[in-house]
Amino acid sequence: MNIVETTLERIKPVNAELLQQAQAKLDNKTKPLGSLGRLEEFGRRVAAISGTMNPDTTKKVIFTFAGDHGVTDEGVSAFPKEVTPQMAFNMLAGGAGVNVLARHAGVEVRLVDVGMDYDFNGALGLIDRKVARGTKNFAKGPAMTRDQALAALKVGIDQADQCKAEGVAMAGTGELGIGNTTPSSAIIAAISGMPVKDLTHRGTGINDAALANKIRAIEQGLALNRPDPKDPLDVLTKVGGLEIAAIAGLVLGCAANGIPVVVDGFISTAGALIASEMHPNVRDYIFAAHASVEIGHRFMLERIGATPILDLNMRLGEGTGAALAMGLIEAGVKVLKEMATFEQAGVAEQL
Amino acid sequence: MNIVETTLERIKPVNAELLQQAQAKLDNKTKPLGSLGRLEEFGRRVAAISGTMNPDTTKKVIFTFAGDHGVTDEGVSAFPKEVTPQMAFNMLAGGAGVNVLARHAGVEVRLVDVGMDYDFNGALGLIDRKVARGTKNFAKGPAMTRDQALAALKVGIDQADQCKAEGVAMAGTGELGIGNTTPSSAIIAAISGMPVKDLTHRGTGINDAALANKIRAIEQGLALNRPDPKDPLDVLTKVGGLEIAAIAGLVLGCAANGIPVVVDGFISTAGALIASEMHPNVRDYIFAAHASVEIGHRFMLERIGATPILDLNMRLGEGTGAALAMGLIEAGVKVLKEMATFEQAGVAEQL
Repeated sequence: MNIVETTLERIKPVNAELLQQAQAKLDNKTKPLGSLGRLEEFGRRVAAISGTMNPDTTKKVIFTFAGDHGVTDEGVSAFPKEVTPQMAFNMLAGGAGVNVLARHAGVEVRLVDVGMDYDFNGALGLIDRKVARGTKNFAKGPAMTRDQALAALKVGIDQADQCKAEGVAMAGTGELGIGNTTPSSAIIAAISGMPVKDLTHRGTGINDAALANKIRAIEQGLALNRPDPKDPLDVLTKVGGLEIAAIAGLVLGCAANGIPVVVDGFISTAGALIASEMHPNVRDYIFAAHASVEIGHRFMLERIGATPILDLNMRLGEGTGAALAMGLIEAGVKVLKEMATFEQAGVAEQL
Repeated sequence: MNIVETTLERIKPVNAELLQQAQAKLDNKTKPLGSLGRLEEFGRRVAAISGTMNPDTTKKVIFTFAGDHGVTDEGVSAFPKEVTPQMAFNMLAGGAGVNVLARHAGVEVRLVDVGMDYDFNGALGLIDRKVARGTKNFAKGPAMTRDQALAALKVGIDQADQCKAEGVAMAGTGELGIGNTTPSSAIIAAISGMPVKDLTHRGTGINDAALANKIRAIEQGLALNRPDPKDPLDVLTKVGGLEIAAIAGLVLGCAANGIPVVVDGFISTAGALIASEMHPNVRDYIFAAHASVEIGHRFMLERIGATPILDLNMRLGEGTGAALAMGLIEAGVKVLKEMATFEQAGVAEQL
């Protein structure tokens, strides 16, 4: 068995008894029943996922996986792929959006090179797990080989295993990769069978003609590569991305290790979708950070069965939405742990 | 002139030039234009409200105003009004929902007694500004005298002036008061002229018969007192609440002092609505923390012109939603202050 198969074997449903115990504890807090809404869901689910009524949420990490995309040769993005390594250096220097928001939320950011088309020469702070210098242009053939997809999945699984070893309470996903809304739209189109045009958006800001070209490139890639919608690894291999594969691996690994995983926007959700198609119980470990502006996002979330926590019109990626959502999920855990009960507070009557 | 009139005179439109400068600064950050969505709005607006491009958001305070309601005699609430002081003690001990969430967000909570029907004998930590031991039953006559309403408004205004003196960067509203969804529904019904039944919800959890009775009590109070929809102070006096008046005062005071004010849920928004009916520029200083489960909330927000930041099915009040939203608004300010520009990051091309 390869590492993906062994990881899938480790994934179990969450502890239903703890889910009930946690809700019973919440019901005894000094508030009307259910009045903290989704915060109660967050507290209850983190307890059940982590296997404890007192999750220690101190250590939180966002993994920003970076990779380049051969399909940018088709002119699908407004920006040249040189911007990917430039933004990676910005992130290593702490100046990117995800750095600011993660610092605010008390979250560490780890940047993992899974497939940038650039030689970083051991740049300080970068986790070098490069599988290839970018994918191939999927409009002309498969984006990767199956072995490359497995290797990139392993990158994410390894990070999750490392989280378990370090006592990380919550992991978040993020990504960096010029052109990566294109494979993300291709993935949801391949899996859902829906028309590409209903799932494809302007990404970071292309015009009407460029949008038509982006749709054309995706349709061409799907027609040429014929990914099997029943085989998520085949979809990932043929029209995915290296950083998307690593995100899928992180999600699988978190599920295998009992770690809540907070999935950022459109591209991250494409990775989470691949993971949840591989094993149905993966869904129980996922928190959807925010509703992306990208139109395909809603269909991914519906298929995963996740309701986004935030809706702030964000479309930056990197893990920015995950950072904010992790703060809210942690708030829910603190409600579970820190709020007084009716008895403790001497409140006579149950609200 | 009374303090309310002098406060209204101090309210000016926000600095439009700073609003533009802040957006220009955001547009030069290492991200596609507008891609941080509402976080950019938060950063831009806090800068313009505070009158500086570098707002120091260290000091943040939620004011939880507490009061009792004579209309509980009509059986409009599932809980006896004795629960109001019990919850006040819980809050002073740090065990209430708002305490937990405010600690999480780095926000101080100040509990202000504007009108609880209980003698606290100088309980530690409670800010004693009691105007009366609760309102009168508005189904049988006016809830307060106009002088009481003015005195309660002054309680809130004084807290805002104190914030200015202390260098508080952001204020939040919260409330405590068994029965206070009833005056809140009455306020929006009086101001909008909409049918009471379309604006009245189950509060903390009453059944069908009790909901019908709550609607009946509000309709009776409006028919009897005939509050003038053109005179927000008259509406507040006749069908409002002491804590709602203090919230309105805090909102007015924040607008007068150039302090962003984060308005919690249904009851707080009733106070903010009174304030924004008193002076149109008040709206520029308001952030709506979250969408309440209460059905009248949407109509209040539409009238104020505010879009809620969060939607997590919360209906606890106290300032719980404000605490969470303040964390997100602060995140927007940090984006404005801390994110690298294209030049700083050496990113060649504008995303």
